[in-house]
Amino acid sequence: MKPASLIETNFQETTALAYEGLFTQGSGYLHVRGSLEEHLRDAPQNTRYLRAPANVTAEKFSNRGAKWGTYVPGLFGHHPLLNREMVNLPWFLGLAPIVDGERLDLIHSTSRDYRRELNLRTATLRRTFTWQTRSGKTLAVCFERFLSAARPHLCIQRLTLQSPAPATVHIEAGIDADVVTSGHDHFQSATVAPAGTNGLTCHVTTDNHDSVHILSQLTPTDAGWQFSGENRRGLLRGELTGTSFIIEKRTAVTTSRDLDKVAAETILRDAEKLSFAELHAEHAAVWAQRWETSDVAIEGDDDAATAMQASLYHLLRCHVPHDPRVTIDAKGYAGDAYFGRFFWDTEMYLLPFFLYTDPARARTLVDFRVQTLPGARANAQATGYRGARYPWESDEAGREQCPNWQYRDHEIHVTADVAYGLAHFARATDPSYLTGPAAAVLVETARYWLDRLDVRAGDDYPSLLGVMGPNEYTPLSANNAYTNRLVAFALSLAAEAGAAGGATTEECAAFRAAAKSLPIPRAADGVLVLQCDGFDQLADPQFATLWRNRKTGYANNVPQERLYRSQALKQADVLMLMMLFPHEFSDAEVRRAWDYYLPLTTHDSSLSPGAHAIVACRLGLRAEAWKFWEMAARLDLDIAHGGAAQGIHIANAGANWMVAVFGFAGLGTMLWEDALTLRPQLPEKWTRLAFPLIWKGCPVYVDIQRTGTRITNRGASALPVIVNGQTQTIAPGESGNFAS
Amino acid sequence: MKPASLIETNFQETTALAYEGLFTQGSGYLHVRGSLEEHLRDAPQNTRYLRAPANVTAEKFSNRGAKWGTYVPGLFGHHPLLNREMVNLPWFLGLAPIVDGERLDLIHSTSRDYRRELNLRTATLRRTFTWQTRSGKTLAVCFERFLSAARPHLCIQRLTLQSPAPATVHIEAGIDADVVTSGHDHFQSATVAPAGTNGLTCHVTTDNHDSVHILSQLTPTDAGWQFSGENRRGLLRGELTGTSFIIEKRTAVTTSRDLDKVAAETILRDAEKLSFAELHAEHAAVWAQRWETSDVAIEGDDDAATAMQASLYHLLRCHVPHDPRVTIDAKGYAGDAYFGRFFWDTEMYLLPFFLYTDPARARTLVDFRVQTLPGARANAQATGYRGARYPWESDEAGREQCPNWQYRDHEIHVTADVAYGLAHFARATDPSYLTGPAAAVLVETARYWLDRLDVRAGDDYPSLLGVMGPNEYTPLSANNAYTNRLVAFALSLAAEAGAAGGATTEECAAFRAAAKSLPIPRAADGVLVLQCDGFDQLADPQFATLWRNRKTGYANNVPQERLYRSQALKQADVLMLMMLFPHEFSDAEVRRAWDYYLPLTTHDSSLSPGAHAIVACRLGLRAEAWKFWEMAARLDLDIAHGGAAQGIHIANAGANWMVAVFGFAGLGTMLWEDALTLRPQLPEKWTRLAFPLIWKGCPVYVDIQRTGTRITNRGASALPVIVNGQTQTIAPGESGNFAS
Repeated sequence: MKPASLIETNFQETTALAYEGLFTQGSGYLHVRGSLEEHLRDAPQNTRYLRAPANVTAEKFSNRGAKWGTYVPGLFGHHPLLNREMVNLPWFLGLAPIVDGERLDLIHSTSRDYRRELNLRTATLRRTFTWQTRSGKTLAVCFERFLSAARPHLCIQRLTLQSPAPATVHIEAGIDADVVTSGHDHFQSATVAPAGTNGLTCHVTTDNHDSVHILSQLTPTDAGWQFSGENRRGLLRGELTGTSFIIEKRTAVTTSRDLDKVAAETILRDAEKLSFAELHAEHAAVWAQRWETSDVAIEGDDDAATAMQASLYHLLRCHVPHDPRVTIDAKGYAGDAYFGRFFWDTEMYLLPFFLYTDPARARTLVDFRVQTLPGARANAQATGYRGARYPWESDEAGREQCPNWQYRDHEIHVTADVAYGLAHFARATDPSYLTGPAAAVLVETARYWLDRLDVRAGDDYPSLLGVMGPNEYTPLSANNAYTNRLVAFALSLAAEAGAAGGATTEECAAFRAAAKSLPIPRAADGVLVLQCDGFDQLADPQFATLWRNRKTGYANNVPQERLYRSQALKQADVLMLMMLFPHEFSDAEVRRAWDYYLPLTTHDSSLSPGAHAIVACRLGLRAEAWKFWEMAARLDLDIAHGGAAQGIHIANAGANWMVAVFGFAGLGTMLWEDALTLRPQLPEKWTRLAFPLIWKGCPVYVDIQRTGTRITNRGASALPVIVNGQTQTIAPGESGNFAS
Repeated sequence: MKPASLIETNFQETTALAYEGLFTQGSGYLHVRGSLEEHLRDAPQNTRYLRAPANVTAEKFSNRGAKWGTYVPGLFGHHPLLNREMVNLPWFLGLAPIVDGERLDLIHSTSRDYRRELNLRTATLRRTFTWQTRSGKTLAVCFERFLSAARPHLCIQRLTLQSPAPATVHIEAGIDADVVTSGHDHFQSATVAPAGTNGLTCHVTTDNHDSVHILSQLTPTDAGWQFSGENRRGLLRGELTGTSFIIEKRTAVTTSRDLDKVAAETILRDAEKLSFAELHAEHAAVWAQRWETSDVAIEGDDDAATAMQASLYHLLRCHVPHDPRVTIDAKGYAGDAYFGRFFWDTEMYLLPFFLYTDPARARTLVDFRVQTLPGARANAQATGYRGARYPWESDEAGREQCPNWQYRDHEIHVTADVAYGLAHFARATDPSYLTGPAAAVLVETARYWLDRLDVRAGDDYPSLLGVMGPNEYTPLSANNAYTNRLVAFALSLAAEAGAAGGATTEECAAFRAAAKSLPIPRAADGVLVLQCDGFDQLADPQFATLWRNRKTGYANNVPQERLYRSQALKQADVLMLMMLFPHEFSDAEVRRAWDYYLPLTTHDSSLSPGAHAIVACRLGLRAEAWKFWEMAARLDLDIAHGGAAQGIHIANAGANWMVAVFGFAGLGTMLWEDALTLRPQLPEKWTRLAFPLIWKGCPVYVDIQRTGTRITNRGASALPVIVNGQTQTIAPGESGNFAS
């Protein structure tokens, strides 16, 4: 396996946030943005401001140089205007050398040979450079850190300094609890105090009454560490003399919400006997195992290979193992721009990767929706509906948190997306899931749908009115095709779950009837699926004249009002619908939709390019597929345009995997296919695309090359495979080869 | 002239806010809510809270017992979430007796024979009751006050106390600058200090850099007044002994925004020589003159007479004479719930009363729009449009302040309403106004309209898409009939203004073409005017099942989401359209619209009943007209349901005048009629309806009785009159009689 890294070779204030987000590390339990250990002098992290609800597409953020982010999934607090949001916890990475009174600062100090590398394989961050102090000394500096995958509460940091001549170095190692989330202080109390002779302890209570404990210990222990603290900040200052220095900072984070009730002291004590190298080795071993079951090999195109591995790294980092109380937030725990909330991304963009590589982990994603059914019931009840409505923006309890009414009230497809995800999971792993844990979700959401339908005067069929589809630029429409189809599917699933979910026979009949009669609007030609009733009566978006600055999205060029009355699409949700129900639409229908919607599509949504790439693959539109792949692949890596500054576009990371597997490899999903079915079409530059899969319980390795495709059955039973229409059954342990 | 009063006979905490709003007094320059001089112990007015943008229909307010309001029109400040709002100024009414250590408090003290009367004729508030102190004393208490119409900066207060036995009374007279607006502190600085031996001075600087000076002086001067002050509050405490006490407090308010740059000291000094009675007499004389030119006499129905006079009182109070820099805010300077901003109410509900009774004052209303053209230009430019767009919620400079996008971006009819108001004014007074001061407004707004129009694919006519009409429950619709017709009218006016407004011949042709081709959607029968394209495809609002609590509006019973997809109407804007363009729709068309829309109309808007009453009169629907008149008439007087607690529904006050004059008297407007045209139909209970008018410059008195109608020409030229189709020309100084 080729090692893959992301590398920064020049520190700049203007790109600092983008790297900080991209270099986020995490253990699943704990995530920390890639901030500089010594921080920057002019980047305060405690500025209080009032963040108001705004259109997320066009929202601007103000941090410069650094935006700390320390997150434990599931820790939410109350914001006075924005509702519940993930709380940014105290920053514990602080570790800075001071030489002759000069505190290291990458903007104000002189340095050269800067290099920062995130090793994606071992999830280790390493930064090296030469520091030329104002007093004339030259030091080789190396910062290293990782959040242990083997011990998820533990962060290990090491600072190595080397000086050609003996020098005295002061070290400041701190914990800073004077931090805010969205400009708001979520801490009811926050203290930092010394712990023993070489430690710091921080206790925080949030406005949700969660408590957080952070304990840091430093070595060498004999550096004469002196504590000082004020205003929720504390630090230890030590002094070392010599030519070579190794300072280690080990930090354990625990909270009152933990499932494993282990004390921070115990975590540090258990690790005490192990060296940095030993701790790193056990950490790297876990990551090696993760890569083993999920890596996508791309050959012939190093950029694509790196982009894919960056996406997979963040997906693997993000997933909280064995904790169904949370799922993956919209920014992949690498920023709080989307409040750490859970969106439809979960089912549509994140679930597939886990479902096809680690179904046990995937289960925690769907279990989250099952667990938060009470929240979904409360959402329905709060607006006078029966049943359960999943929130557009979910907190950890499934309660609606979206402060913008147009999304909150009208982008209701998420409730049907949840059902789609449950079905995808069940058909891939265990069909009884739908009549087991998921049954109540299916029936309760179906009850909501029945209550939410209208039969318009003169119609003999139900309609869904007042709907925003995934294309968020049409805020209130009738019979959004995507939503209607997903809802019909959800209603059918509920009818099948039936009594297992508490539905009466009459209810099931009503579910079935509604599922059958919800319309999919079409143009007069009968071929073109319309996004919604009257879509053809919306305004021309006038891209040629109004989209002046093409470096920013269309939404940044025109007022929201114009978006909301025009045919401009954030993403083409009709195409997304066709991706999700591939057998229900002929190639001609998909092609007609493609030709109609593409010229109207802005791709202002980061969810857009991936889905479009997959549909382009289906249509054999190789150039377009490649264009959309490139848009999606570089999204977080495009440092110059902000990249991951506000967090990882984690749904897009999932989409990148989907483009490779569902798009270029042409894999049919387990929702619709019994046999493993591929229609590979490698991009021009790629010489090889290979990846492991779990196909309905059977481990498989797919290896696509220019010359042909080789499928290896790593499971215990025979595997039927269809590649480009050719069928083979591959015996356990055997491979099957298919010519191109 | 029969004296008319509003009377409160029982002070209750639960109805205190409603009376406080209803009893608001004002000089035009200065307005003060009807708060108790001694205030209430448990009603703090300095509570900071975060008021967020919310749906105004359903918003709840939290004050109990008292909500001070001291307003100088035009003084706006910046709110962090809500944009610019009128600033609630320091409260200067404070005047409280203390006997044997007991400070008068209507909740905690014992009192009887309570009576508070607002004399609408003299705009004087008088409160009397007997106070039984805990120490066993009995005092007759009388508070009086008025804001001088003759000296608009001046407030005169008098407190009279009478005790059967000699007593010592302490008096506290204060100014309290520790006040907020929408929970926000708008003061950069605020101080209260002693002024001389018997005075207090308060200086405030707002966050808009406006300064406000308040100066109070007390008599008797020899009460040994002692100053104490803290936290933006100051008071004088004096002591008097005897059996009869008269304490006067005279307060002058000036600001840096005043057109007359008179000092508060000068104002008080000028009034020094005059007694309370003399000051009151000159004040009452101004009010008598106002009533003379505007009173609407209703006989046979005292409730209606009182309601009408209450409406007229507030209209007369509100109008700022000779200052075109401000107009009348939505709550009539009697509350800050709508931020003191200016709405379409100005043209559609307030202008008529002034235009038909005092055209010179009416001119300041239309001049306000002319003056704020630069703000309107900025609004258009900010969203990429040419020309000028008048704001949904205007500050004093015409800049858009509405924080809710659905109204701000989509309720664009206000810009056409402005043009309608200009035309109404011009045709009533001076047609050259449209080619003079108004010309640039007409042309610039027409340029905006041309830019705002879309021609949909397949259409050969323009459409206005993404529009919220006056019925705010359909947030985004195509070709709202009301808006389209008003816009077409505005475009025609612009074409007529032409070069005078800076338009080229080509532009005028384009204005004319668009005016001609903007559609008015109709149902298949060709008779029913549809509110908008596809109105018949919206959902059934299900009033029978969903409008459970009929004591509150439909909007309080269902989520906004349901409003936004249903046919529920806040008000029927098609009927409003028919009221504004009466000759363009046949009785059959109006009747069809009435029958179609009325069952869908919630009248959740306070603007709704008045307009419906007028249309009912046109249709001869006497019972319905009466029902809507009663709804409108009692709105602010309905103490039990909150009435004017958050301020006067001043547009409804204007509508009440309109119902009497345009509805029951059946007057055609000066916009459409050359001759004074009446079609009287007195409500059953009324024996007489009589009012003065200025008909195109000619003063007229209209006197409608059961037996017939008498029109008196008080002007200098012959007046053609049409009553129920009979034409007469009435000579100057003569009357014409028309049989019923």
